[in-house]
Amino acid sequence: MTTKRVKEILSWYSADNAGTKANLARMLNHGRLAGTGKMVILPVDQGFEHGPARSFAPNPAAYDPRYHFELAIEAGCNAYAAPLGFLEAGAAEFAGDIPLILKLNNSETLAKVGEPISAVTGSVDEALRLGCAAIGFTIYPGSGEARTAYHQIAELTEEAKSKGLAVVVWSYPRGSSLSKEGETAIDVVAYAAQIACQLGVHVIKVKPPTAHLEQAEAKKVYEKEKIPIGTLAERVRHVVASCFAGRRILIFSGGAAKGKAEILEEIRGTADGGAFGSIMGRNSFQRPRTEAIELLHEVMDIFASA
Amino acid sequence: MTTKRVKEILSWYSADNAGTKANLARMLNHGRLAGTGKMVILPVDQGFEHGPARSFAPNPAAYDPRYHFELAIEAGCNAYAAPLGFLEAGAAEFAGDIPLILKLNNSETLAKVGEPISAVTGSVDEALRLGCAAIGFTIYPGSGEARTAYHQIAELTEEAKSKGLAVVVWSYPRGSSLSKEGETAIDVVAYAAQIACQLGVHVIKVKPPTAHLEQAEAKKVYEKEKIPIGTLAERVRHVVASCFAGRRILIFSGGAAKGKAEILEEIRGTADGGAFGSIMGRNSFQRPRTEAIELLHEVMDIFASA
Amino acid sequence: MTTKRVKEILSWYSADNAGTKANLARMLNHGRLAGTGKMVILPVDQGFEHGPARSFAPNPAAYDPRYHFELAIEAGCNAYAAPLGFLEAGAAEFAGDIPLILKLNNSETLAKVGEPISAVTGSVDEALRLGCAAIGFTIYPGSGEARTAYHQIAELTEEAKSKGLAVVVWSYPRGSSLSKEGETAIDVVAYAAQIACQLGVHVIKVKPPTAHLEQAEAKKVYEKEKIPIGTLAERVRHVVASCFAGRRILIFSGGAAKGKAEILEEIRGTADGGAFGSIMGRNSFQRPRTEAIELLHEVMDIFASA
Amino acid sequence: MTTKRVKEILSWYSADNAGTKANLARMLNHGRLAGTGKMVILPVDQGFEHGPARSFAPNPAAYDPRYHFELAIEAGCNAYAAPLGFLEAGAAEFAGDIPLILKLNNSETLAKVGEPISAVTGSVDEALRLGCAAIGFTIYPGSGEARTAYHQIAELTEEAKSKGLAVVVWSYPRGSSLSKEGETAIDVVAYAAQIACQLGVHVIKVKPPTAHLEQAEAKKVYEKEKIPIGTLAERVRHVVASCFAGRRILIFSGGAAKGKAEILEEIRGTADGGAFGSIMGRNSFQRPRTEAIELLHEVMDIFASA
Amino acid sequence: MTTKRVKEILSWYSADNAGTKANLARMLNHGRLAGTGKMVILPVDQGFEHGPARSFAPNPAAYDPRYHFELAIEAGCNAYAAPLGFLEAGAAEFAGDIPLILKLNNSETLAKVGEPISAVTGSVDEALRLGCAAIGFTIYPGSGEARTAYHQIAELTEEAKSKGLAVVVWSYPRGSSLSKEGETAIDVVAYAAQIACQLGVHVIKVKPPTAHLEQAEAKKVYEKEKIPIGTLAERVRHVVASCFAGRRILIFSGGAAKGKAEILEEIRGTADGGAFGSIMGRNSFQRPRTEAIELLHEVMDIFASA
Repeated sequence: MTTKRVKEILSWYSADNAGTKANLARMLNHGRLAGTGKMVILPVDQGFEHGPARSFAPNPAAYDPRYHFELAIEAGCNAYAAPLGFLEAGAAEFAGDIPLILKLNNSETLAKVGEPISAVTGSVDEALRLGCAAIGFTIYPGSGEARTAYHQIAELTEEAKSKGLAVVVWSYPRGSSLSKEGETAIDVVAYAAQIACQLGVHVIKVKPPTAHLEQAEAKKVYEKEKIPIGTLAERVRHVVASCFAGRRILIFSGGAAKGKAEILEEIRGTADGGAFGSIMGRNSFQRPRTEAIELLHEVMDIFASA
Repeated sequence: MTTKRVKEILSWYSADNAGTKANLARMLNHGRLAGTGKMVILPVDQGFEHGPARSFAPNPAAYDPRYHFELAIEAGCNAYAAPLGFLEAGAAEFAGDIPLILKLNNSETLAKVGEPISAVTGSVDEALRLGCAAIGFTIYPGSGEARTAYHQIAELTEEAKSKGLAVVVWSYPRGSSLSKEGETAIDVVAYAAQIACQLGVHVIKVKPPTAHLEQAEAKKVYEKEKIPIGTLAERVRHVVASCFAGRRILIFSGGAAKGKAEILEEIRGTADGGAFGSIMGRNSFQRPRTEAIELLHEVMDIFASA
Repeated sequence: MTTKRVKEILSWYSADNAGTKANLARMLNHGRLAGTGKMVILPVDQGFEHGPARSFAPNPAAYDPRYHFELAIEAGCNAYAAPLGFLEAGAAEFAGDIPLILKLNNSETLAKVGEPISAVTGSVDEALRLGCAAIGFTIYPGSGEARTAYHQIAELTEEAKSKGLAVVVWSYPRGSSLSKEGETAIDVVAYAAQIACQLGVHVIKVKPPTAHLEQAEAKKVYEKEKIPIGTLAERVRHVVASCFAGRRILIFSGGAAKGKAEILEEIRGTADGGAFGSIMGRNSFQRPRTEAIELLHEVMDIFASA
Repeated sequence: MTTKRVKEILSWYSADNAGTKANLARMLNHGRLAGTGKMVILPVDQGFEHGPARSFAPNPAAYDPRYHFELAIEAGCNAYAAPLGFLEAGAAEFAGDIPLILKLNNSETLAKVGEPISAVTGSVDEALRLGCAAIGFTIYPGSGEARTAYHQIAELTEEAKSKGLAVVVWSYPRGSSLSKEGETAIDVVAYAAQIACQLGVHVIKVKPPTAHLEQAEAKKVYEKEKIPIGTLAERVRHVVASCFAGRRILIFSGGAAKGKAEILEEIRGTADGGAFGSIMGRNSFQRPRTEAIELLHEVMDIFASA
Repeated sequence: MTTKRVKEILSWYSADNAGTKANLARMLNHGRLAGTGKMVILPVDQGFEHGPARSFAPNPAAYDPRYHFELAIEAGCNAYAAPLGFLEAGAAEFAGDIPLILKLNNSETLAKVGEPISAVTGSVDEALRLGCAAIGFTIYPGSGEARTAYHQIAELTEEAKSKGLAVVVWSYPRGSSLSKEGETAIDVVAYAAQIACQLGVHVIKVKPPTAHLEQAEAKKVYEKEKIPIGTLAERVRHVVASCFAGRRILIFSGGAAKGKAEILEEIRGTADGGAFGSIMGRNSFQRPRTEAIELLHEVMDIFASA
């Protein structure tokens, strides 16, 4: 039964057809956070992005694609997101057990040339074939190739919506126009979230922002308008506002692997700021299974009580 | 009831089908300027172009996409133009309340590489799905990528016309072949307007031109033929003539946010020169709602009495 | 009634379907030169190519797209060629009054980067929609982008022929591989005409060639074979021969605006050389209407009596 | 009759349709290793990759495309892989005698410019027309053009699967971002295998890895997690694990032509490490036929008894 | 009646459909060499490749496209190959008189930038419309753009075969990776022929090779395996072997215009080496008609008696 809160969230997507709304509802109504309007997603694209050893050697059970389905299911995540190969290796076996998100583009880190853009490695029809609830896509705002990526996701989004799927976008500023620090600057992260929203996607994933201000023109406005960005919660609140005044589902990535205390503190910050949840890869699948489930439960509890 | 003036304007688009004429009429017959043959449009693509804080922090109500629908409706604008995300967030709720223009391409200002061209982020079918009256598109005449943009808008225009939509083009000269001053030079602005007209679009939006002459070959002709370009009204008159001797709807953008007196003076200049109206974004949605509506009404009054 | 000469010309296009032959006949059978096998065409793409002031300020009536329809009709031209915008602005009003040629690609002169190639700004279906007899297209032999243009016109030509339209090509050598003088060198102009013929088009338009020889390999042959290139008539005769031994319709452009005497002398040269006619833009529409019509009539008379 | 082991292997591809499973089974159930779950494939793309003399002069019978069909059939290989020309020259004559793999992209070594990517020289429909069981494709992880290749194989894989074919990928790290030694480094080879798996292919072919570690970030993990990479068998075991914990068919290429003892030693290493087989071109077809068959049999025996 | 030899040749193309075989037979069964399994083809793409004066001024009758049809028919050639324009100018008039090959790509020599690749200027459907037996296409192995050309011809070949046409490829090594001498080096010419064969085409045309060895890796093999390349006949024999052990139709181009004795000596060399014929353009159409026919007959006689 769809809760009042989930119905409210669905009401923000009033231009979508019933199929897309049903798939958004599938994710919001699944797992430990079902009905709360919050989401914790397990993403496992590290094998493609960083290679198998860096991704799975710390917890060798994770070499097996079935492991991640089981982890997401047992932990009670709202959805599991991965590239084609990983999803195909369990989609039939775990059919119906957890909403799936097919990641439609991916990067590797062997090649080190050119401006960043992920390779398109899947299609909306592949997502349908595997019974997914949504497609996933990464954009790199600030990249010299960002225009191509915007066009790709615009076309995929149009197709996904017409076929009743939801769209989840990873919006990670990157490229030669940005400083390393600028990639997580509050003005840049809020801008990256806004771009994803304007592209018409349903769920936006960004990194927790720092208090750094990257763009001179933006800096003036933050200072003049005294936008509070001192604490993580304040910064998250600003990014939530930047997502159509909170009327889009905005979740935060966990980032690099780190200690549990540090993770939970960060989660609390994002939850306090009004984030809709978290997408946590390395910090979950690189831990032993029980530990990972315990951590994911604690994360979910923070969001549930936010 | 379509006025004589609106019928006259529609007669200039004699090659268009009834559907497209009806959608042009929808815009000309809506709002406070209905029937006058003048148009004031609210455009809100600043979130994509400049980021959320620079766009909405001065008037935080504007973070919410519903705000802009309400503003355009209450102020009695002829139409509201925005990218996909913003339109989807209100198209159902405000269905039928105001003609919509789906902006089909957009730029961000994080990436700073290459010649200017906007990313295509929407489609004609998306405009139909959202019940729009027109598509919007930006070209940058003078850009090293302009040929690609001309081809894109030519294809979109053909499709839009065949599906009964109107086409609005933002024609903003830009790129490494032009000086900064040249972007608003009278010869360049008139040229940019002419290009848009020759591409077969219905409504052309340019920036108010300065008296600067950028191109050596053009300068000779302006001087030899003594084309009057001393006042804004004279320059606007020249741009109107450059739009098929005034037989295309030419409107002017408000440009950067500024004081009310300055805005109204500029509007009077464009109105005196025979412009068909104005498209005013930052100068309206960055003001408090009442103030914005008041300003928009004064702008409309100037055009109504021109 | 189609004359013997027109029937003879049509017989050269024996691979074409009846629709295309009928459209070639429409142009050959229209206007003051109807039935003579000669053609004078009014082309007005200067607005796109040079901007409105440089094009129309010398004769401000020409800002109005209807002016050019009227000029072509009153002067008794065989056809009127223009980009989409200009044709749409009169195609319905003047339907049936004069054969139309939709120019499918266009260049602007604001951007000054890269090798020359025009932007594709129209389609064969647009030409059909507007009731055109032919499509027009510019190629720049010698350009680093010429391969792309050859492929574009090959595809458009195939489509146009299958839909019963004729194809007119402007073949203007240009690009970093050619000297300025080489653009009108007799070897280069003859080569450019041959390329257009080999691409399968029906009407070829080139510039009047000079006696300059640009390519070393070609120079040897011209000298060894003693090809006469001393007078304009001799050079035109060579270009006519280069167009399938005179079995393709070859016409010459008037080039930059100049004095009447100079124009008529050039026309006499091309007519004496066996050219099928002229395509005269700036030299007609930049003159006052009566003067322009008088000039066009004199030009036609020269071809009629050649 | 499909063996228990083959059924087990097929069970790993649970997302595939019956047609694709049947074609995987065709290869696994053919030849001397039928039913063992092991595969030895004869690949002959050397003519395209290195030219005819370097490929076939050592054993001139191999100039004839029928030779390779006969060799693969007589030796009892599981499949024969080649480009379009070679397959067409025998597909009808040897129809039904051996499963075929159409190599859909190929490189030549005359051109020495740009980042590596093979030219697409075939299609899924061509593979169907020739009665193939699978398509073959080469990717070069680390290449500046790898994104294009990933997108190509993703599209071909989607089409192949929908039409009931299997997909075999040659994953060879290469390009300016990698050192020569790095192309066969264990971290890079394992990464290349993982990428192919994530792209959703069925059979992955890599080169035998060395103990070199190319990427600084990966090196830290290999050392910290003490991943055993001292012997070839250990390294192969790691690559097998990197292929979805052994749930994808991973085979190794024979590499450059060399002595029999050396070959067999390498084969033993890969077999001990859990490889599913070998793909051996130059080392088989450049030997006299009897010698080649003898060698292939010994190789098969090693895998059969592994 | 198809001869035994022609049936044997057709048997090599066992993967082709009946339509393609019939068109191969049309060429093999036409003209003075009908039934011998040998072919002499008249190619006239010089107008596009070198310009009209360099091509036709030595024999001005050749400016007329009908001349080449007549020459090919009277001389009893197996087929006539030309670009679209030249074929269209006679395809109806000479329908049924000689098998036609539509050259689908062409180069001009005015532009001197970038790596070599011909522009695609025709289509398979155009070849069908004109009643052709085959399509023709040029590839430049070794060019930095060769990958694009391989992909183009692969797609055109697939379409041509499905529509019952044969495919003839001009394989001319060229580009910045090769020395001028290397373009006709025996290792490079044999490699270029092999590539065309692997692409699945039916008839391969290369230039007569010299004894030069361009590639270091290949040189080692030629020397080690003692491949005889001392005489033209030996080199041709090696190229014939490189074309699937002689099971593909390999013909040689005549190259630059030269004296009759020299031509016939070269023809004898290629005939002795087992070539299937010759494709002779400039050396035939630049001679007076009677002389050309005489020469072509002598050439045919050499092949007939080889």
